[in-house]
Amino acid sequence: MDDITIIKLGGQVIDDEDKMNKALAGFSALNRPKILVHGGGKTANTLLNQLGLEQQLINGRRITNLESLRVVQMVYAGLVNKNIVAKLQSMHCPSVGLSGADANCILAEKRPVRDIDYGYVGDIIQVDSSVLIKFIEHGLTPVICALTHDGQGQILNTNADTIATEVGISFAKNYKVTLIYCFEQSGVLTDTEDKSSVISDLHPGYFQQLKAAGKINEGMIPKLDNAFRALGHGVNKVYITHYQSLDDLSDLETLTATRITLFEKNEK
Amino acid sequence: MDDITIIKLGGQVIDDEDKMNKALAGFSALNRPKILVHGGGKTANTLLNQLGLEQQLINGRRITNLESLRVVQMVYAGLVNKNIVAKLQSMHCPSVGLSGADANCILAEKRPVRDIDYGYVGDIIQVDSSVLIKFIEHGLTPVICALTHDGQGQILNTNADTIATEVGISFAKNYKVTLIYCFEQSGVLTDTEDKSSVISDLHPGYFQQLKAAGKINEGMIPKLDNAFRALGHGVNKVYITHYQSLDDLSDLETLTATRITLFEKNEK
Repeated sequence: MDDITIIKLGGQVIDDEDKMNKALAGFSALNRPKILVHGGGKTANTLLNQLGLEQQLINGRRITNLESLRVVQMVYAGLVNKNIVAKLQSMHCPSVGLSGADANCILAEKRPVRDIDYGYVGDIIQVDSSVLIKFIEHGLTPVICALTHDGQGQILNTNADTIATEVGISFAKNYKVTLIYCFEQSGVLTDTEDKSSVISDLHPGYFQQLKAAGKINEGMIPKLDNAFRALGHGVNKVYITHYQSLDDLSDLETLTATRITLFEKNEK
Repeated sequence: MDDITIIKLGGQVIDDEDKMNKALAGFSALNRPKILVHGGGKTANTLLNQLGLEQQLINGRRITNLESLRVVQMVYAGLVNKNIVAKLQSMHCPSVGLSGADANCILAEKRPVRDIDYGYVGDIIQVDSSVLIKFIEHGLTPVICALTHDGQGQILNTNADTIATEVGISFAKNYKVTLIYCFEQSGVLTDTEDKSSVISDLHPGYFQQLKAAGKINEGMIPKLDNAFRALGHGVNKVYITHYQSLDDLSDLETLTATRITLFEKNEK
């Protein structure tokens, strides 16, 4: 084993059984060492609402108090993670569902309070790629949900893109890592109303330029920051693409996707 | 490795953080190959109520419809399982939380409808002890929640005592298995109002006699059926005891507990 593919599944795929099944069919057929990282979709918010709990926001950033951590933990590790694992087993992709606490695979610290107290949010300290490799060597594909732990008994909420990124980086020293963020669009769009406006290659200069022109969707910015961080820390290839791209990853060069690069094509 | 201890944690321990911490402290200090199986306590019922969903009962038996499965799955695999795993990590007991779907460790079938349709309840077909051994050999203690799967993508609800029993039986061919059901009493009581009325040894004849006299609590009967089944299928020793007994399991002969046996002491 000298290469690994890390797939992050997020967006509407999580909340839509049909889309999820399509994505998992593609994923399970991928005949290479692989890891799945998934977000929680909108279910946690729906459940918070059903329980009469309000999603706390400060400056548009989500705050994870104890009550919302409980809900997030139930939805991510209980509902979504186990549904995915059961589905993958049925697709002949033996897998094991993990939070960062399981096998101590992702250790984090509660985000220090500066301007904002984000609550029970974990900033990753260390990913133990060696234990993930052991699972893979035993034929078990890790399915990681967006939870970490602090080593002191506390589960923490951590963004799934960030988890995928840090898992990718943890493998980059010893493996050729391909990191693919999948959702319901074919890549990063310059016009969210126009699904064909996919940027094929995105390097930091172009990103700054588009961001300044207000052409990058707000929600896409942290994902792209993660993508550039991954490349800067040794991850080999990073793509943002549609979950249906998982059906055929045999030729990444011809993939309809946004390929993230550190340099302009002729600049490298 | 030639012996294994399987601990089932249930009852009030699950819902009480202080009790849980004490139980896990004892469990984590157990210096032998071990597996933890846990129930879900009352949290699932509380959450069902909070969501305005009613717990369906037929003849006093709980029915698991899709809505309650969702809740049970979230509470067992998300909330309780991950809290236990995070706590065990902090107690230097490396562990991995599992449902029956994870690593395909417990395959079940949806209970066939005869008189009653129990809904999404799984009757265990097979426990894969070999994958659990692999985890243990890699230094990871399995923490199994009360969920199985059908191999077709469906998570199923399965009684935690039954899971502990079947896990024990799956090991019994090749290992000396000790199975200990822990809760908030020191054993099986002949008088639920009198905590000192612990039965020290219970064999099938005595069980039938007590049951006929109405001296066995209703809720205890399936647990005892499980206990006798385990012994009948090769499990070496079975105890029902207080969770604080986990603090010292060095001498099982002097444990304050109900020891389940297949024969009367002088009958064997």
